[in-house]
Amino acid sequence: LRDLFIGSEGTLGVITAAVLKLFPKPAEKATAFVALPDLASALPLYSLAQETAGHGLTAYEVMAGIVLDLVLKHTPGARDPFAARHPWYVLIETSGLKADGAAERVLTEVLTAASEKGLLVDAAIAGSLSQAADFWRLRESYSPAQKPEGGNIKNDISVAVALIPEFIARADAAVARLCPGARPVPLAHFGDGSVHFNIAQPPGMAKEAFLARWDDLTHAVQDIVIELGGSISAEHGIGVMKRADLARVKSDVEMDLMRRIKSSLDPKGILNPGKVL
Amino acid sequence: LRDLFIGSEGTLGVITAAVLKLFPKPAEKATAFVALPDLASALPLYSLAQETAGHGLTAYEVMAGIVLDLVLKHTPGARDPFAARHPWYVLIETSGLKADGAAERVLTEVLTAASEKGLLVDAAIAGSLSQAADFWRLRESYSPAQKPEGGNIKNDISVAVALIPEFIARADAAVARLCPGARPVPLAHFGDGSVHFNIAQPPGMAKEAFLARWDDLTHAVQDIVIELGGSISAEHGIGVMKRADLARVKSDVEMDLMRRIKSSLDPKGILNPGKVL
Repeated sequence: LRDLFIGSEGTLGVITAAVLKLFPKPAEKATAFVALPDLASALPLYSLAQETAGHGLTAYEVMAGIVLDLVLKHTPGARDPFAARHPWYVLIETSGLKADGAAERVLTEVLTAASEKGLLVDAAIAGSLSQAADFWRLRESYSPAQKPEGGNIKNDISVAVALIPEFIARADAAVARLCPGARPVPLAHFGDGSVHFNIAQPPGMAKEAFLARWDDLTHAVQDIVIELGGSISAEHGIGVMKRADLARVKSDVEMDLMRRIKSSLDPKGILNPGKVL
Repeated sequence: LRDLFIGSEGTLGVITAAVLKLFPKPAEKATAFVALPDLASALPLYSLAQETAGHGLTAYEVMAGIVLDLVLKHTPGARDPFAARHPWYVLIETSGLKADGAAERVLTEVLTAASEKGLLVDAAIAGSLSQAADFWRLRESYSPAQKPEGGNIKNDISVAVALIPEFIARADAAVARLCPGARPVPLAHFGDGSVHFNIAQPPGMAKEAFLARWDDLTHAVQDIVIELGGSISAEHGIGVMKRADLARVKSDVEMDLMRRIKSSLDPKGILNPGKVL
């Protein structure tokens, strides 16, 4: 029963208690902002980082060049870690259980090996906690930096980690075909296979005209996700916004099973009504 | 739906495909057989190992002294790693992503710190792969070594990791009260909170007379598990053997919810009939 309630968004019952398994808090972290030659390099670099740091790899956030463009444009005090503009970036964090410098040694080892293999074109390791915070602010400004750009059509999807580059390339192509000038702004949490594939409106287009393309563009992105065996909801669930989309991408059998479970646990339909199903 | 099917023992549907997330295979392992002064030391030693080795801690198997007694008695070629008999033992394994000796250094560090804190009385680190295999054989002989001892009443339960010592102490006391001479043979997988709490019959007692106490003794153990907020089935599920026990320890509401889900997904009752519910 427990796992049925997790992710059911309050539609099957109310969770009133939880037991958490805790792990030791890391004593040190090391952070790098890395410039990639292309999206294809993100996957072998991730494998290299995972092989070298193991579970000590605690963040691997891949961002298209346009993410940094918008963050630098709209975030007061944000500074580019590099002298040149690059097509793709990744924020890498490693953590260590002891404050013995191992996190930074492992991170340096990853970056040195990646450089030798041509998987990166530039890299900056944070030399202080404030520089690490600056790197993280570039990442965390992802959403606010898109707001001043007008209409934004949001996708929060997941696919197998190894398919993230293929997903982004195909989704980019679909957007270019359906709405020339619209700007995909992808950010991928490589560790769990989830991708924020937001689409910023073409500069100069009327915001309402762009947002009228919501279903059109999200359905094209979702169709690629389903072809790749992924999920149209990653971190943010189904809720109201994706309720109609759920029925689009799930089979009749799946929808029927979900409705049967809902009606057997909530026959009066009083639990978070109108959500998910 | 996915998490509903996991653990449903084939009663809700048939799993026909699965996608697995893979992690790099360790390049090296280090193994130690450790003698503890008492059961209470097992928990702080586990915390110490987890703080020092992090996710590199890949096994922590706690065994009562009687486990080793029976294994040495009934396993051809099994040898005691120590000159003296000790009340509790733990098999600890650490793993490393590179073959650089770090797994053994970390394990040595754990044991040295534990020794200084009085958490262990003796320890042997395997000096070769064959010695590591010998240590593991002591652990893996847990089940076969109990067979020649006659009747065996099996419990496979789980409680929060921090409550394992309390569970074992209380279950030991319950067995001593209900069936003097019966011998608890506990083995705890500390990493996931699951405990095999087998009970070997009193020497000399008729096997059938002991097995007639099955419900009596398992219910006493299960009641302690439920008081501690645990689960009466850990690794081995409910199946047929614990079907009646499930209804004993679950509330009417929980049983009703499970039955509703079962009947809504399998209205004809054709999926693994007779199991779980």
